[in-house]
Amino acid sequence: MSLGEFDLIRRYFRRPDSHEAVAVGIGDDCAVLRPSPGQHWLVSSDMLVEGRHFLSTVAPERLAHKALAVNLSDLAACGATPRAFFLALALPRADAVWCEAFARGLFALADAHGIALAGGDTTAGPLNLCITVMGEAPAGQALLRSGARVGDEIWVSGELGDARLALEVFRGTQALSGADFEQVRQAMETPSPRVALGQALRGIASAAIDVSDGFVGDLGHVLQASGVGATVEAEALPRSPILRAQPLALQRLCTLAGGDDYELIFTAPADRAEAVRAAAQACQTTVTRIGRIEAAPGLRLMDAQGQRLELGLRSFDHFLSP
Amino acid sequence: MSLGEFDLIRRYFRRPDSHEAVAVGIGDDCAVLRPSPGQHWLVSSDMLVEGRHFLSTVAPERLAHKALAVNLSDLAACGATPRAFFLALALPRADAVWCEAFARGLFALADAHGIALAGGDTTAGPLNLCITVMGEAPAGQALLRSGARVGDEIWVSGELGDARLALEVFRGTQALSGADFEQVRQAMETPSPRVALGQALRGIASAAIDVSDGFVGDLGHVLQASGVGATVEAEALPRSPILRAQPLALQRLCTLAGGDDYELIFTAPADRAEAVRAAAQACQTTVTRIGRIEAAPGLRLMDAQGQRLELGLRSFDHFLSP
Repeated sequence: MSLGEFDLIRRYFRRPDSHEAVAVGIGDDCAVLRPSPGQHWLVSSDMLVEGRHFLSTVAPERLAHKALAVNLSDLAACGATPRAFFLALALPRADAVWCEAFARGLFALADAHGIALAGGDTTAGPLNLCITVMGEAPAGQALLRSGARVGDEIWVSGELGDARLALEVFRGTQALSGADFEQVRQAMETPSPRVALGQALRGIASAAIDVSDGFVGDLGHVLQASGVGATVEAEALPRSPILRAQPLALQRLCTLAGGDDYELIFTAPADRAEAVRAAAQACQTTVTRIGRIEAAPGLRLMDAQGQRLELGLRSFDHFLSP
Repeated sequence: MSLGEFDLIRRYFRRPDSHEAVAVGIGDDCAVLRPSPGQHWLVSSDMLVEGRHFLSTVAPERLAHKALAVNLSDLAACGATPRAFFLALALPRADAVWCEAFARGLFALADAHGIALAGGDTTAGPLNLCITVMGEAPAGQALLRSGARVGDEIWVSGELGDARLALEVFRGTQALSGADFEQVRQAMETPSPRVALGQALRGIASAAIDVSDGFVGDLGHVLQASGVGATVEAEALPRSPILRAQPLALQRLCTLAGGDDYELIFTAPADRAEAVRAAAQACQTTVTRIGRIEAAPGLRLMDAQGQRLELGLRSFDHFLSP
């Protein structure tokens, strides 16, 4: 089934404007947004390409979820309240069944986070999704990568590594039972951005980032931006029972350099540990303390015996990795 | 030459943050933007795909110019002041020569319009550019498609059709002398978004749109959004001497359904004609009055003898057109 571009937009992506942040939504040259007084706007843009960020086999509903989730995760990492997003979509063809499922997945997650689709673009082309999200935080209160201070504790939300484990199964390097595979596949395909936690950590956390490229690389961005170093206990990184049943080398690969986790790494002064736990509990999110910020540059990974690990892991880089 | 993703961003796209609208630019999970009090934010997102929106032969400098220009044109159509933009870029490979030229073209146009690159994304993939622009206009003063009223006059800026004429030469259906081709090719590859004119028309124009898909289709969007019709004198549509030297049928195709013009179509009450001319003169932009808004729905195109033209033209649609 083939649809014209404007029909496609109207039929699947246009809904009545009802969000307080959106004065004029889809249908004009620009969307018109209303900033709230005293707030800064937090904006992030991510592009997802078939075969690189997602497999061609993924269901459109899950693909939509993930494309929006990875962007919401950037808002979460800054402690922002989601307001509006823009979707640019290149499709090989205007397929109504695909679009309907995609829109269903997209709006389910958008509605769960109170963010409005305010505009975008559709075109023919190799499958490509670019989402730009916009959120708000009180001026000066956004969580940045640059705020970590010596003595701060390092925390991570949820569990790391299941998405990478699922990818390895897809690649055929690992095998799991059907039930286990379904669970780790969900971590890979429908991650839960930690939006509520990010907001709850405003005024508590000193720095934050979301884990998209892998723990080591992403924590490295915080250390570099803050001009500090860190020691992290590798075995303290939280992981699912499924991952914990795998060989230790695979556990380490998945937790330390897995990527696609969309959990938050954040730092907080040691005397705010109780506030961190209270914030996490209020969001029904687990958080785990995994290390400490230090003055000496670089990241030191320690094993359970307190010996330093030299793993040679590096962060996932889209141009250098296979 | 192959570069890592982060190196590439640092080397070519990261510049010191110096724009008043940008509190934190490239390098964190989100950019942090400062809205000005009393302003609404105007946001538009456009995706450009190789082979559809631009030819694979285009120089990277011109490609960058065009990608940003088509987005600035959306801000112009709303009368917005450009503030910040986000670039998501999928590249088959990280080519330093290409990126350097692309960045040069991008920042030349950005600086000319005082808009800051505040963030974005780079990834490997089939060549695809997604730019999201953000501008400001005083609350309630954005120019919308829906404001045209019966009796308003219809205006267009600059000249229409050269970009389409250039495309036809590239397609091999037309031939031009070298000098003429260079001129129309510039219209196609490095259009000038009417940003100053759009701002100058705030409070004067009743509705506006930019010509991206073709005059007939784009004016049609205004008519539909405003619930009105129009009569337009087809031969009054402004065109270059080069296009005027072509057969009438080609002139009509290029001016009425050409696309890629990035001029503004706007409407204004008849008693504001002098204000329109003064605004245009202040921006050193030509404007031409070409028709009138009427109550009867639909667009009536008249020839120079006052006879109705039935051309069967329709707006360019990315999924239905060849």
